Amino acid sequence: MEEYKFKPIGYVRTEAKDLPRHWSVSDVEGEIVIKPEYKLGIRDIKTGDKIVVLFVFHKSPPFTSDKLIQKPPHLNETKGVFSTCSPHRPNPIGLSVLEVLDVIDNVIKVKRLDMYDGTPVLDIKPFCF
Amino acid sequence: MEEYKFKPIGYVRTEAKDLPRHWSVSDVEGEIVIKPEYKLGIRDIKTGDKIVVLFVFHKSPPFTSDKLIQKPPHLNETKGVFSTCSPHRPNPIGLSVLEVLDVIDNVIKVKRLDMYDGTPVLDIKPFCF
Repeated sequence: MEEYKFKPIGYVRTEAKDLPRHWSVSDVEGEIVIKPEYKLGIRDIKTGDKIVVLFVFHKSPPFTSDKLIQKPPHLNETKGVFSTCSPHRPNPIGLSVLEVLDVIDNVIKVKRLDMYDGTPVLDIKPFCF
Repeated sequence: MEEYKFKPIGYVRTEAKDLPRHWSVSDVEGEIVIKPEYKLGIRDIKTGDKIVVLFVFHKSPPFTSDKLIQKPPHLNETKGVFSTCSPHRPNPIGLSVLEVLDVIDNVIKVKRLDMYDGTPVLDIKPFCF
């Protein structure tokens, strides 16, 4: 079975325990701590930037087929999993659009967090939609 | 070393050989063929939807540190990798925003492709930015 392996480029750090369900409704602040070996790659990320962060929903249990249809907490109807932002998905990869408050050394200070402390970050991309 | 494993939920099919560098400048059409076991999960994807597709840059060679800074083909300056959409990145995950033309059985017909035929698809999310 074809399989792809990814290693975190860094981790989320935040003191917040209650995280909103989605970055678009979040004011939570925290940090993305980038591993030293990738630090040079964040050279051009600046205060005020919007960044797309891909991360692992590392607290999600393994996916089961009963999650192919889910009822999102903010809706009164069920949806196919690929029409939701649920953390329960075949590949538990999350996407958040965060606002950069500051960049100091290998640490990106961010706002709009909807990820827990310790969340593994897989990639950061420029927001250009 | 912490590592996360992901299996494709499906694959891109297109007859196009020359793909544009980015979905935002693409008119290329093709299909995302979803594995039968995940078909129910695309139930609510409809003609006219915009979808966020996460995929593997499966043709990229293993990442090396000389790619932490790159010169994007459309720019005259170098950028840190996390400020680019380059396929050469520590975790070779791509993101495209595609337009749904039709959904037939387990096949999503799409426009704005910038992925090669055979590209493994990891996830599909609703576009809500």
